[in-house]
Amino acid sequence: MKTKPKKPAAWRRSPCPVANTLDLVGDKWTLLIIRDMARGKRTYGELAASPEGIPTNILAERLRRLEEAGIVERAAYQERPTRYAYTLSAKGRDLEELLAAFRRWGRKHIPGVRSYAEAVRSRRPPPTT
Amino acid sequence: MKTKPKKPAAWRRSPCPVANTLDLVGDKWTLLIIRDMARGKRTYGELAASPEGIPTNILAERLRRLEEAGIVERAAYQERPTRYAYTLSAKGRDLEELLAAFRRWGRKHIPGVRSYAEAVRSRRPPPTT
Repeated sequence: MKTKPKKPAAWRRSPCPVANTLDLVGDKWTLLIIRDMARGKRTYGELAASPEGIPTNILAERLRRLEEAGIVERAAYQERPTRYAYTLSAKGRDLEELLAAFRRWGRKHIPGVRSYAEAVRSRRPPPTT
Repeated sequence: MKTKPKKPAAWRRSPCPVANTLDLVGDKWTLLIIRDMARGKRTYGELAASPEGIPTNILAERLRRLEEAGIVERAAYQERPTRYAYTLSAKGRDLEELLAAFRRWGRKHIPGVRSYAEAVRSRRPPPTT
């Protein structure tokens, strides 16, 4: 069987590095999953429980796509029933720079935003003494 | 008329700066429009002509949303018929850091990507002398 010489994949939209990165993570949910994994969430249940309320069908589809793209790694941590833990690969951890750019822009330009940790602190009443 | 005391807007999904920035620019087209404006494209026609082939209804809707969000500024540059030029505000120019993070990640992790300028150069035959 003759194999074709290796050539670049047909680009979905263009060869632009920005366009191709957007094709992988340019939607309103994917980077929130990456954010949660960067914070240490590992299981489907933990990822589904975030305050944004990701629909579970979207979570499942994104995890599958991220695994295919080599951004997320999946490993069974329990048998009968099998349960999986998801972690960021090195390629996925490199997205943290991108997340940090989103975070900086949001903090600078959207009044009142705050991280989950800050939101939890602000709901706790101040000490009375 | 009584006005309510000012309080933070009800968040679309959560107060997270990443989630709220995604709500503004987290889709597969918006950052390509920002990329083109950062390169100096200013008119609707120039923005519509990019290699990714943005559908014109999406371009019009995104420009309207970006103007509402204070990311893009619109000014008439011609009368009868009125034509508008679009430029990035200071808030919009701050998105260039975010674009740069997309570009770096794409160059590092997606084999073969290249910028528009590089793509044009590679189509030009080499000098024969």
